[in-house]
Amino acid sequence: MKTDHLLFGAAYYSEYLPYDRVEKDMEMMEKAGMNTIRIAESTWSTIEPKDGIFDFTHLDKMLEAAARHHISVIVGTPTYAIPAWLAKKYPDILALTNNGQNIYGARQNMDITHAGYLFHCERVIRAMMEHIKDVPHIIGFQLDNETKSYGTAGPRVQAMFVDYLKEKYPDINEFNREFGLDYWSNRVNTWEDFLDIRGTINESLAAEFAKFQRLLVTRFLAWQAAIVSGYKRPDQFITQNFDYDWTDHSIGYQPEVNQYEAARCMTVAGCDIYHPSQSLLTGEEITFCGNISRSLKKDNYLVLETQAQGNIAWLPYPGQLRLQAYSHIANGSNSVMYWHWHSIHNAIESYWKGILSHDFSENETYREAASIGADWKRIGTHLSNLQKKNRAAILLDNNSLTGLRLFPLKDLGNYSYNTVARWLGDALYHLNIEYDMISSAERDFSSYECLIVPALYSASEDLLTAISDYVKNGGHLITTFRSGFSDEQLKIYADTQPHILQECLGIHYDQYTYPVDVSVTLPDFMASDVGSSCSDESCTNSSKCLHWMDLVTCDTATPLFFYDHPVWKKYAAATVNQFGKGSALYLSSMFDGALLEKVLVHYFASLPETLLAHPECHFPLIIREGVNDFGKRVRFYFNYSGEKQTAICKGFSGTELLSGRKIMEQETFSLEPWGVVIVEEN
Amino acid sequence: MKTDHLLFGAAYYSEYLPYDRVEKDMEMMEKAGMNTIRIAESTWSTIEPKDGIFDFTHLDKMLEAAARHHISVIVGTPTYAIPAWLAKKYPDILALTNNGQNIYGARQNMDITHAGYLFHCERVIRAMMEHIKDVPHIIGFQLDNETKSYGTAGPRVQAMFVDYLKEKYPDINEFNREFGLDYWSNRVNTWEDFLDIRGTINESLAAEFAKFQRLLVTRFLAWQAAIVSGYKRPDQFITQNFDYDWTDHSIGYQPEVNQYEAARCMTVAGCDIYHPSQSLLTGEEITFCGNISRSLKKDNYLVLETQAQGNIAWLPYPGQLRLQAYSHIANGSNSVMYWHWHSIHNAIESYWKGILSHDFSENETYREAASIGADWKRIGTHLSNLQKKNRAAILLDNNSLTGLRLFPLKDLGNYSYNTVARWLGDALYHLNIEYDMISSAERDFSSYECLIVPALYSASEDLLTAISDYVKNGGHLITTFRSGFSDEQLKIYADTQPHILQECLGIHYDQYTYPVDVSVTLPDFMASDVGSSCSDESCTNSSKCLHWMDLVTCDTATPLFFYDHPVWKKYAAATVNQFGKGSALYLSSMFDGALLEKVLVHYFASLPETLLAHPECHFPLIIREGVNDFGKRVRFYFNYSGEKQTAICKGFSGTELLSGRKIMEQETFSLEPWGVVIVEEN
Amino acid sequence: MKTDHLLFGAAYYSEYLPYDRVEKDMEMMEKAGMNTIRIAESTWSTIEPKDGIFDFTHLDKMLEAAARHHISVIVGTPTYAIPAWLAKKYPDILALTNNGQNIYGARQNMDITHAGYLFHCERVIRAMMEHIKDVPHIIGFQLDNETKSYGTAGPRVQAMFVDYLKEKYPDINEFNREFGLDYWSNRVNTWEDFLDIRGTINESLAAEFAKFQRLLVTRFLAWQAAIVSGYKRPDQFITQNFDYDWTDHSIGYQPEVNQYEAARCMTVAGCDIYHPSQSLLTGEEITFCGNISRSLKKDNYLVLETQAQGNIAWLPYPGQLRLQAYSHIANGSNSVMYWHWHSIHNAIESYWKGILSHDFSENETYREAASIGADWKRIGTHLSNLQKKNRAAILLDNNSLTGLRLFPLKDLGNYSYNTVARWLGDALYHLNIEYDMISSAERDFSSYECLIVPALYSASEDLLTAISDYVKNGGHLITTFRSGFSDEQLKIYADTQPHILQECLGIHYDQYTYPVDVSVTLPDFMASDVGSSCSDESCTNSSKCLHWMDLVTCDTATPLFFYDHPVWKKYAAATVNQFGKGSALYLSSMFDGALLEKVLVHYFASLPETLLAHPECHFPLIIREGVNDFGKRVRFYFNYSGEKQTAICKGFSGTELLSGRKIMEQETFSLEPWGVVIVEEN
Repeated sequence: MKTDHLLFGAAYYSEYLPYDRVEKDMEMMEKAGMNTIRIAESTWSTIEPKDGIFDFTHLDKMLEAAARHHISVIVGTPTYAIPAWLAKKYPDILALTNNGQNIYGARQNMDITHAGYLFHCERVIRAMMEHIKDVPHIIGFQLDNETKSYGTAGPRVQAMFVDYLKEKYPDINEFNREFGLDYWSNRVNTWEDFLDIRGTINESLAAEFAKFQRLLVTRFLAWQAAIVSGYKRPDQFITQNFDYDWTDHSIGYQPEVNQYEAARCMTVAGCDIYHPSQSLLTGEEITFCGNISRSLKKDNYLVLETQAQGNIAWLPYPGQLRLQAYSHIANGSNSVMYWHWHSIHNAIESYWKGILSHDFSENETYREAASIGADWKRIGTHLSNLQKKNRAAILLDNNSLTGLRLFPLKDLGNYSYNTVARWLGDALYHLNIEYDMISSAERDFSSYECLIVPALYSASEDLLTAISDYVKNGGHLITTFRSGFSDEQLKIYADTQPHILQECLGIHYDQYTYPVDVSVTLPDFMASDVGSSCSDESCTNSSKCLHWMDLVTCDTATPLFFYDHPVWKKYAAATVNQFGKGSALYLSSMFDGALLEKVLVHYFASLPETLLAHPECHFPLIIREGVNDFGKRVRFYFNYSGEKQTAICKGFSGTELLSGRKIMEQETFSLEPWGVVIVEEN
Repeated sequence: MKTDHLLFGAAYYSEYLPYDRVEKDMEMMEKAGMNTIRIAESTWSTIEPKDGIFDFTHLDKMLEAAARHHISVIVGTPTYAIPAWLAKKYPDILALTNNGQNIYGARQNMDITHAGYLFHCERVIRAMMEHIKDVPHIIGFQLDNETKSYGTAGPRVQAMFVDYLKEKYPDINEFNREFGLDYWSNRVNTWEDFLDIRGTINESLAAEFAKFQRLLVTRFLAWQAAIVSGYKRPDQFITQNFDYDWTDHSIGYQPEVNQYEAARCMTVAGCDIYHPSQSLLTGEEITFCGNISRSLKKDNYLVLETQAQGNIAWLPYPGQLRLQAYSHIANGSNSVMYWHWHSIHNAIESYWKGILSHDFSENETYREAASIGADWKRIGTHLSNLQKKNRAAILLDNNSLTGLRLFPLKDLGNYSYNTVARWLGDALYHLNIEYDMISSAERDFSSYECLIVPALYSASEDLLTAISDYVKNGGHLITTFRSGFSDEQLKIYADTQPHILQECLGIHYDQYTYPVDVSVTLPDFMASDVGSSCSDESCTNSSKCLHWMDLVTCDTATPLFFYDHPVWKKYAAATVNQFGKGSALYLSSMFDGALLEKVLVHYFASLPETLLAHPECHFPLIIREGVNDFGKRVRFYFNYSGEKQTAICKGFSGTELLSGRKIMEQETFSLEPWGVVIVEEN
Repeated sequence: MKTDHLLFGAAYYSEYLPYDRVEKDMEMMEKAGMNTIRIAESTWSTIEPKDGIFDFTHLDKMLEAAARHHISVIVGTPTYAIPAWLAKKYPDILALTNNGQNIYGARQNMDITHAGYLFHCERVIRAMMEHIKDVPHIIGFQLDNETKSYGTAGPRVQAMFVDYLKEKYPDINEFNREFGLDYWSNRVNTWEDFLDIRGTINESLAAEFAKFQRLLVTRFLAWQAAIVSGYKRPDQFITQNFDYDWTDHSIGYQPEVNQYEAARCMTVAGCDIYHPSQSLLTGEEITFCGNISRSLKKDNYLVLETQAQGNIAWLPYPGQLRLQAYSHIANGSNSVMYWHWHSIHNAIESYWKGILSHDFSENETYREAASIGADWKRIGTHLSNLQKKNRAAILLDNNSLTGLRLFPLKDLGNYSYNTVARWLGDALYHLNIEYDMISSAERDFSSYECLIVPALYSASEDLLTAISDYVKNGGHLITTFRSGFSDEQLKIYADTQPHILQECLGIHYDQYTYPVDVSVTLPDFMASDVGSSCSDESCTNSSKCLHWMDLVTCDTATPLFFYDHPVWKKYAAATVNQFGKGSALYLSSMFDGALLEKVLVHYFASLPETLLAHPECHFPLIIREGVNDFGKRVRFYFNYSGEKQTAICKGFSGTELLSGRKIMEQETFSLEPWGVVIVEEN
């Protein structure tokens, strides 16, 4: 979806204000150059304080004030936090999960399949839509928020799951066979005997239930989209605020939602991205997660939430708020929306701070935001709707993620899959190679020169065949340990590993173990090749192996290097194979990211056309590029460090958009700590 | 309450003896100079083996033997551990808590508001009191033991809580507003919809419930006191065995009891203090916790329980039992009562050992206790009823403690508040500055030259105003980060921080973060000022900042030093402000205790009259002082180390009470490892 | 039980195969020299897919194919994993434990006392036995698998426990006294008031319940044995697959089964042993656990399960599979049976890999197994039924193990007992002293020259007297801290410690603590004595003390060395006492195993005849010996390291069985990394 300007603003909740300051807040927003607010999400109990009694006072007041201050509005359906009266009315509306029966209090605690929940969702959405459908400056609608199944697994949900299985497996014997239920006497001979899924020791079944739970999310969002569509104008969009896998910040693809499926009902993909800050700010999460969102609709996307002050540890250093904002835009976002405007004065998110602190005064964060707003009024149209044409893509797969949660790599637990995916993605990022994401539901990868497939633990035979064919037809594949190991039900393939890919990769293995005192050392020709791309001291040529090691024997592949270990030294740690018109790089184990970068540089150097567009530049100096609505190339230079950096403008002359200064091709310029330079091609 | 001698003894349970040795035990006690036992607490099932059938055999036997051996008795009501038959009779007498339904077995597992519990408590107390009311050598009564609410949160208790809220907030809209319940749709429009408090994500509500639970304790103890008062003679006292916040030992103020409120119904404050031992013995807990107890009734107090051998890690080194005993007395206690006489031969506290080991023989601990007993027969009257006149006081607040449990400092979790309070209290202790505690319910602090206010996270406006006025009128305030930040409902104040105190402190801030690679360095004038008070090598002039940092800007205050950090260096880490006739020291972050001591010394040096009574002495050499019943100053010198120490007698000549030796003013004398010297002014 | 050949094979489950390959598998087994499979255990839902409908297709097919390939079969009763229909039929068949109600899914989740479970167990066992009773190549039956009580503690089980107590204690007052229930008001005056055992804080009661739960296991297995015995031929054996205490591998005696009692109903003891591998392979677990199994029937035993590839971390280095196999045999096992033949393609044990990987191809593990099979065809009859005559024995006691779970040593938690037992057992192993195990139910230890008694925390007076008498009559005792401390109910003995043993040991103590900065240093005469037995660098003469320290005073004993500590230095850390015709070594604390070995060598040197048969050899060079069916001594030399080792053949000349080479007395020979040499006496 195109926007005619960059959306800049914040979530705003007049419901939570300690005193009425809507007018004052809107003034401050307008002064800061903000043009959009997001409202209503999670405020059900204010909109419908009693069962069937609606009160749109807050909404009306915010909408009216926004209009006066030239601020557009995204309205969220309020359904992701249920009111107390609704929980009281249907005690079983609170989900029963693996941890037992939820009790009231938190958001996202309900069973999204409960008829009572759905009935009241629909009624409040229709009442709200009816009320606001003619408001001109509402530009779009957000369905619910960060929707997931919340682990709902009560008896009724389990019965739905059994129905789903029955339909998929009309023959119960086939079901037993497909899921290996004879193991530990888990066989069911009638569907009535179906076991409580919460106790299962059968990961195939657990993964299928996780898939079913993702389906519930897809269905729920499509259902809300249909309701909202009945009211919205053609110029209004529908989106969702997708979130990501989470440690104490966004780290990778969301396990509980098939975002590619779920996004079908939407006009534009939306997301929230939270990341470490201060000395830990790298831009890695902004890039990895943003790339996911850009790939959902293969189009620009919206950052609907990101941190302003954020939590206590994240208070940004001077310059970081700007750097973050431009990084989102450089990645293809058409918006930067903070969560949230003002800090909340009590309850669980009191210290997840907005732009303003609790005192509502202008502070350092506000002033930096205002400088962004001022810039965007000036140059925003040069930055919106950036089109990117990337030559590499990372393939993402929900079921492999689930599979590696159930059978994790050593020490990585639930984060096994995303750690491998980030290992690859972050190496590309450090090397200034821009990449897309691509869903594992796709079969045609031919638009990419390089397909990166991290730990594709679960894969159907036709997907593996499509990948193999991609290489045969001239594609370049980078893949890792644990790929092609089990089928869609996590049933391990019963022939030579890696299944189907072995010819394409030119290798096989029948054993693997955890690396203990195992390392890898780059051979000299690789170590010297890449000196220039890697400037910092962590770039040595040797690294411990971690988390997993396949004991790989080369068939037609060339080993790049072997394990350093008295016993395992005969097995290859990385291999390259020529297959058909293409080639494939296999990584048998995980090692230091700096080493991986050298391996990638070496591999890319062997391709007909290297993917290294900026071999002279390396993280913390980051380069991003896109084509704007004027058909001009726009290149961003980001300094992700507290030290000054020097860069050179290669390939074209242009105008530095922030300063208006002309920059000549080959001109050298410096970047402030956490600084940004943006050059638009002449 | 005055006592005519120091109470010295132990808890004693003939009920738990593997064979009858009451006579032998009393002989050994008498031989050791013990004069008091504490009995009956927690022995309900022996006193009332069947519902309504009472058996005072054990009591009578112990009372009778005690009389013959000149031993006084404190009798506890037996109510803190309920008998099996009572749990059987009322299954719901066992509390429902956040962790679910308690099951029978442990003590302190009941709902203290349950009518069945109260009925049977009253009956057993009346039966016991009736039985023993004429026993002359019973000197006092202990109500229950270490009473708390035990997290009781069942439906009936929650209904009581709703009634309490209804009374406090007749207007439910005001209630919603005051607690910010619109957040995440938690609003309640009728009290019937009130959410299950156990699931709340609203810390304001959680804190109010914690306050309500403390109120239940106050009411329960007052109710027991009223019953006991119906029987007790005027010469008998009523007390309670208050315990403290706990890691694996006593560490600070009790979160679950408002001891100031609860102590109102009592004649004398009582407590138990447990602390690390062996090389970790410091006296810090004895002082900090004892100061709390002394402040409850602003009078001498009773140490009703402390460790003899204690748990396995605590077996005292030679000399430590004496050092501990005199430290309690020096702090204003009129008793040292061990828990317990003999070690118990089975069940959960088998290794929480008494004076005697399981073999009942005289051991090292018994012999050291006997040496204390012998001393006290001789010199006890010179040590009891010590009066202290301290010039500094630390303000304690239950609700701030709760607030910082709910919004903890980094890495400190539940211990956030007490860690800050101990940081300040222990620095004073190390500097040999004696201090009182004072309740946050007080408004007049004028009797103290210096008021120390640790992390007063939750404070009403009138408390903050009282503190500010105290300074204006000439008081000296020391306070820290997180003070004056939120109101009594943990609702964060919506104007400039620190709320109300900003003028008095001469500073403000609108941002804060966790310190990462941030340190502070004392300026030269502070570093050199205090060299003498600090002898050990840990006293350097630089320290990491920990747990929290306010980004403080000085308005009228003088910064003492700033943060060492490339970005945060413009913010002050400590400031001093002159305000009215007084002054205020603000600590924006937490750093090493040795540095804090230097800051305090510097600050005290600037006051009209320094609080440093013993600038030449520093921990591990500890000096305590009081005035005894003879009107004489008594000064204790304690060596809290395994090395010999040398001290000097300043200010007066006197008599060393233990040896009877005369000590002249300015005379130098040495202290044995873990040694004690006591000088009474001539 | 004698076997006419070594059993070599694997557990085999055609039920779990992804496609039919029974014939192919049997061919591969036969080719690898395998002669035995174990089947049917845990396959109830395949054998009885619907209630009362039996299907022996899989069994028949495997039995028939096995016969054609000369493979014998051990059939397990399928009862340790219940089918879904059975859980559906009796919802309360799933055990209620301390963690609440089990849900269906995992194995070993049922209440083994449930009448419905027992009824259906019996029916399926009888149906299966009836069906297979005439199959000639079934050589034996396994009852259930790794049977335990699984923590069953529901109301009915608790009622059974009360009945058990009633019978044991007809007088409820005696019961209260014996268990010290007056403590914390836990007294029960009628059995109806008996508390929920799951909440008890009375470890005596908890330990009695653990004992009762072990009794349930003994009864259940005896009941199954009686059923199976009604069908089995005289040539067929009955066994059980006992497992061991578990961290992430077998570590010592099983807490939840009294294996000595439970083995009574069996023909031959069976077990599974899993252990660390790769660089962590030591043979310690094979020896310690195997010695337990050998002691159950005082006869050869069967290793029914051990690792092939095992879990991911355990993939064996080349040579290790052979080394392990010979270690089992050298220890007296008549079998090596792998768990399992092929790796399973899905569900919880997908990565607990068998001999074959998921691809069913010959791999390194298969090839190494085949080399063992080939050897055993040739030389197996020289290795089976090895008789061992050991001079030392370690006394094992379930109740002490339970006692030290409830009152653990510092930092050792549930593993306190086995850590001490392994400390002693592993020291003997390192010194190449072979030892037996002996049950604490025995009273005559006179067949052993040395009795080793680790941490016998719970002991009846007659057991302690028997141990004391053993020494008096010439035995040599090695015992440790925590021995003789409490009675069978964990009631601590109320006289001088160690109870009864004090005269025999010549010591006493009345205090103990945890060692903090406490070490021991061997005196010169001990340090030099043992230089030769200890070759590696970890063998210094000083060590930290860990986990516990008794403060021991010698009465008649000679202190070997004292604690290095300023305060505790007067107490002995190890003592030796002459008592009657024997002697006793007491270890007051735990220290480094290498130091313990020196202490043992010193002690053994003082005995009339040293137990050190191989003073020149020390781990990693391990020597085992037995007498074979030809009456010849067979001596195994094992190299438990990745470095070559040299050994010498002492005492006799013979034939190296693997190579057929002659070896002369005093001949020196070398051992490959992880290598094996076996010499049969001429």
